[in-house]
Parts: sequence; C-alpha cells; structure tokens
Amino acid sequence: MISKLDNYETVVLSRDKCVIEIIDQTLLPRETKVITLKTREEIYEAIKKLRVRGAPAIGVCAALGVYVCALHSTAEDFYADVASAAGYIRSSRPTAVNLMWAVDRMMAVAEKNKALGRSDFIAVLLEEAERIYTEDIECCRKIGENGLSLLSEGDGILTHCNAGRLATVKYGTATAPMYLGHERGYDFKVYCDETRPLLQGARLTATELMAAGLDVTLLCDNMSGALMRTGRINAVIVGCDRVAANGDTANKIGTSMVAALAARYGIPFYVAAPTSTIDMSTPGGDDIKIEEREPLEVTEMWYESPMAPEGVKVFNPAFDVTDSELITAFITEKGVVYPPFADNFRELFDKE
Amino acid sequence: MISKLDNYETVVLSRDKCVIEIIDQTLLPRETKVITLKTREEIYEAIKKLRVRGAPAIGVCAALGVYVCALHSTAEDFYADVASAAGYIRSSRPTAVNLMWAVDRMMAVAEKNKALGRSDFIAVLLEEAERIYTEDIECCRKIGENGLSLLSEGDGILTHCNAGRLATVKYGTATAPMYLGHERGYDFKVYCDETRPLLQGARLTATELMAAGLDVTLLCDNMSGALMRTGRINAVIVGCDRVAANGDTANKIGTSMVAALAARYGIPFYVAAPTSTIDMSTPGGDDIKIEEREPLEVTEMWYESPMAPEGVKVFNPAFDVTDSELITAFITEKGVVYPPFADNFRELFDKE
Repeated sequence: MISKLDNYETVVLSRDKCVIEIIDQTLLPRETKVITLKTREEIYEAIKKLRVRGAPAIGVCAALGVYVCALHSTAEDFYADVASAAGYIRSSRPTAVNLMWAVDRMMAVAEKNKALGRSDFIAVLLEEAERIYTEDIECCRKIGENGLSLLSEGDGILTHCNAGRLATVKYGTATAPMYLGHERGYDFKVYCDETRPLLQGARLTATELMAAGLDVTLLCDNMSGALMRTGRINAVIVGCDRVAANGDTANKIGTSMVAALAARYGIPFYVAAPTSTIDMSTPGGDDIKIEEREPLEVTEMWYESPMAPEGVKVFNPAFDVTDSELITAFITEKGVVYPPFADNFRELFDKE
Repeated sequence: MISKLDNYETVVLSRDKCVIEIIDQTLLPRETKVITLKTREEIYEAIKKLRVRGAPAIGVCAALGVYVCALHSTAEDFYADVASAAGYIRSSRPTAVNLMWAVDRMMAVAEKNKALGRSDFIAVLLEEAERIYTEDIECCRKIGENGLSLLSEGDGILTHCNAGRLATVKYGTATAPMYLGHERGYDFKVYCDETRPLLQGARLTATELMAAGLDVTLLCDNMSGALMRTGRINAVIVGCDRVAANGDTANKIGTSMVAALAARYGIPFYVAAPTSTIDMSTPGGDDIKIEEREPLEVTEMWYESPMAPEGVKVFNPAFDVTDSELITAFITEKGVVYPPFADNFRELFDKE
C-alpha cells in the first residue's frame, strides 16, 4: 500500500488535462486509491466527504474543478453553466476559505473573458487553474527551503496533525522542510502526534512520511511531554489555520499544548505559514472564533463500541490558539519571521 | 447501565463472606456486571485480565482471595494448600507492588498461626483481609477530606486517567475529594481527560463519576490546554504510581503535560498520594524506570481497522515523570504536604 504513495501529487490534472486525479484520503492508511473527478457532482462530493482535504489542496482541487467543468460543458449558455458549476463546487465546504478564494479567482478570470470566444475561455481557465496549482507547489517548496535553514542533520522533529503533502499538492507546509531535508540526506527522525479525535497525525502524516522513506515514529498526544524530556526533539514544526496580526495562531486542537511544552523544554517551536494564512485584520487570538464539534467524534468514532458512558458531555474544540509568545518563528514562503511579529508581519506585507 | 453503578464497592466479600464480588471492568462502560470469584483460578484470571485493576483494588482482591481460598480448602495439608493458592494469586501480575504486599501480609499472619487449629486460622485470615479492605476505604476517605479542604463550591476540576473509585474499594484517591464534595453539595464540574491509548479516563473515570451523579465532561488529552485557557479549571487532581523522595512523581502518561500546562495557567496541581506510594528509597524522577508498552495499543486497539500505517514505529511509554516543581501539593491520608517535599516527606514519616 505504502509504496504506491512513493511519488505522487495529492491533486493533479490527468489524461491530457481532461480529468482531476486525487488520492482518496478517507481510505488511508488502509488503502491508497487514486480516484478520478470529472463532473461537478464528483468534485463536490470529494471535497464534502474529505476525500481531498487541507486548505491548499481543496483550493487547487476547486480551481481545477472549475476548469474541468468548463472543458466538458455542452450547455448552450456556456458561461452560465460554468458559473453554476463554480457556485456548486464553492458550496461543498462552507467554512473553507481557500475554497472560496480559488473559485472566486477562477470566476474573476472567467468574467474578464466573458466577451471572448469559447476556445480562448477554456485556455484562460486552464492557465489560471495551473497557476494556482503551481503557486501552491512553489509556496510549499520555499517554506521547505526556509524551514530547512533552521534545522541540522539528524534532528528530531515533532509535528502535530497533518500540515503535510496530503494537505497540499506536494511537500506540505510543516512537512516541506522534512521532505527537502530527506532529499538531501539530512536523516531526520520525525515524530507524529496521532492527533485525536480524528487521528490525522496517525492516519495521514505518519503514512505520507513513511511512504516517502522518512524515519517516522508515532505517539499519542499525551506523550509529547515525555518525549521532549528524553532530549530527542530538536524542533517542533506545525501548520496553521489562521495567524492573527500579533502572531497568535489558530491550529488543530492540541497545538498550544505542544507549544507550551516546547517552551518548557527549551525547544524551538516553528509555525509553517503561507503568508495567505496571516490575517492582518484579526488583531489577536481572542478574536478567532473556535468551532466546537460533535461529541460523537470523541465518544464513538473509530471505535467498535462506545468507549465512554452514554450521554456524557464532551468538550471538543476543533482548534486552539497558541499565544504568540510561545512561537519561536513563522516559516513563510517569503522568509522566516521572528518576533516582534506585529511589526515584522507589517514589514513583510509592506514590501510587496 | 449507569444506574446499576450507583452505590457499590469495587471489591467486596459477599454471601456470608464466602465469595468475592467484583465489577468486571473489562466490560465498562458498555455493561455493568458483577462477577463472583471463589477459586484461585478465578481470582488469578480476574487480576491478570484486568477485570479488577488499580493498585489498591488489586491488593484488596488478592487479600480477600487468600482468605476465600483458605475458607474453601479441603486439602489434607491445609497450610501448604493456602500457601500454594497465595503464590499462584501473587503471580497474576508480576509488577503490581500492592499485589505482592497484600499477599505477603496475609501469609505473614498465616505463618504466625501455623501452629494453631484450623478454625482460628480462618478467622485470623478473615480479620487481616478485612483490615486491608477497611484500611483502603479509610485511607481514601481521609485523602478525600484533606483534598476537599483545598477546594471551593462550584470548582472546575480536571483529572487524568483513573485514580478513581474503580481503582480502590471506594472513593478512589484523586476522585475522593470529588465524591465527598458531591455528598456535601459542592456542585463541582469535573473534566476527565480520555487518556490514550487505553482510554481509562473515558471508559472508567467518566463512567464512575456520572454513575454517582457528578457533573462530568469528557475531553481528548490534547484539549486540556484549550480548556484551561477558558478559565473553567480551578484545580487539577491526579493519582500517582510512585512518588520519589524529592517529590518527582510517576503517573499515567500525559500527567506531566497537564502539570506543565497548569503551571502555565496558574492552576494548582495536586497529586492524591497514599503515603504507601511515597518511596523514600528513590531519590528522584530519573531513578524511576518507565515501562514502554506494545505499539499495537496505539495503532490498532479499539479500532475497527488499523488507524496508522502498517509497521510504523511507536513511542508508547506507560508512565511519565512530573517534575516536583510543577506540583503544588500532595494530598495524603495523613495531611496535605507542600514544598519543600524532601523535608516535609521526611517529617511526615518521622512522626510515625
């Protein structure tokens, strides 16, 4: 199973650029199956059911999806048909910012070209979709290069959840320095928190890193303190969902605990962050709303029988906020950003 | 199911003191079933298969077990038969200190009475077994009283793993202040870490506290930092497996993380510790050997199908060591012990 994952892109145009191919992530780690998406219904379903997941990968899939729907459209009102497909795809996951962003970017191009003939319209959509796709690969690759500058050969690296290759087209964000280092013989020892309740660390991160030949060790979320105490961890690298202007960072639940422990044990804590996730309109962590999810994810999901008393109350936040003071640096595609974050983020964006 | 657990002792002599009754903990939380133990084979199996677990409860079960085997012995060489049963029961879990201690205490009494007639022998064994049983209840009750003096009405209390009623005869250690407070209308809000990989917090602690009518909320181990950040937690109380002379404490994996976070958020962190777990012959935490357990507990147990890539390496320590500097106080049956622990433990034992 694993060997099939050896060299792949999570989302890719295939068969003379006529269909999308994705790895069905709901089947991992049991089965590595590539599925084909061609219709708007297939694309919608794949995003909704988390067959493709991770903000960057969803964005790329949606962009390629708008193009593929346009390519196969036989409607008389071609533009209206594409707009309808785009709107449908856009609604597949209501809170995914990259999804909206990618579809809107495709439709902005489409609108600009509305007056033009059909053949050029398709070419323009393909160009934009491929640009979104290439930008993602490039962004991750640069995060990898910048992150690698912070690491040494043989380092023990801890990560949490999946900010990996499977969440992007290639390389991932938090994992990008690991993949590039591996290509260059750095011999990293990577440790993955399993990441309850949905186990993305065990199911996805451990799987993709093992498939690429890295040295991977899995642990439960409550074991990283004991692991850090052994001295085996030289750096922590995690991804992020949203970074506030002061550096406070929302990411998968448990991230803030890893950060607090890294601070206690004097281990640098890095956040891999495409600059698109830095939201200068959010002043601080208290301004980020944290979604609470279904109790069943904790009490029943994955288990053959309920593993908690029936009807027990559950605290199940999807994310937490890591205070900026616990973060050593942000690894962005434009460079490594150190404190004071508020000033240095502003400088980063002012440069553009 | 839950209501059946309402008023019970985890291990008890029953039917005119002829058999042992225990709650089969391997069936919780699905089913609350009381099973009867009479033969040495039944007692051995119940301890080995974790139908009864938790150091104090195992000790009591073994002590009652030696008595029950003596009571039903029809062997010609009565003393040899009891010694053989005791040795067999003693071997059911090789690393359980309380098991050895309780059996040895029973056999010391038996040896003293070897010269006496059979009827008195049984009475003496019953008396010693009931003493061990009563001492456990009393020890937990005093821990409860001492712990309660540190709490206020309406407090939010976080606990980890199961240092509960199900690990003792009654009350538990970490849970004893919660039960006593509940009896007196303190209206605590208790939060239980689920405690991967074996989920004792979800399966046992949440179950026993709910059954007793307490307000219980379950969370995954990686959520306690986010929970503390909300301000809902006023105190953390955990149990312990072994306390070193300097106060460093070995307990279920994850305990040290909860302690580090409590320190960060300014929340008092208490360890409920019968003085029997304070080992003055162990200087500090680095002298405590930490058992590593089977990878399968992390990668497959509880799951319908493997939730991690096949063959992945696993870091699975059963315990961790919490540095004494993170511990606010120890709650013992003899009183609350504050730092400096080395001095104050010595004083506690010197008093005796």
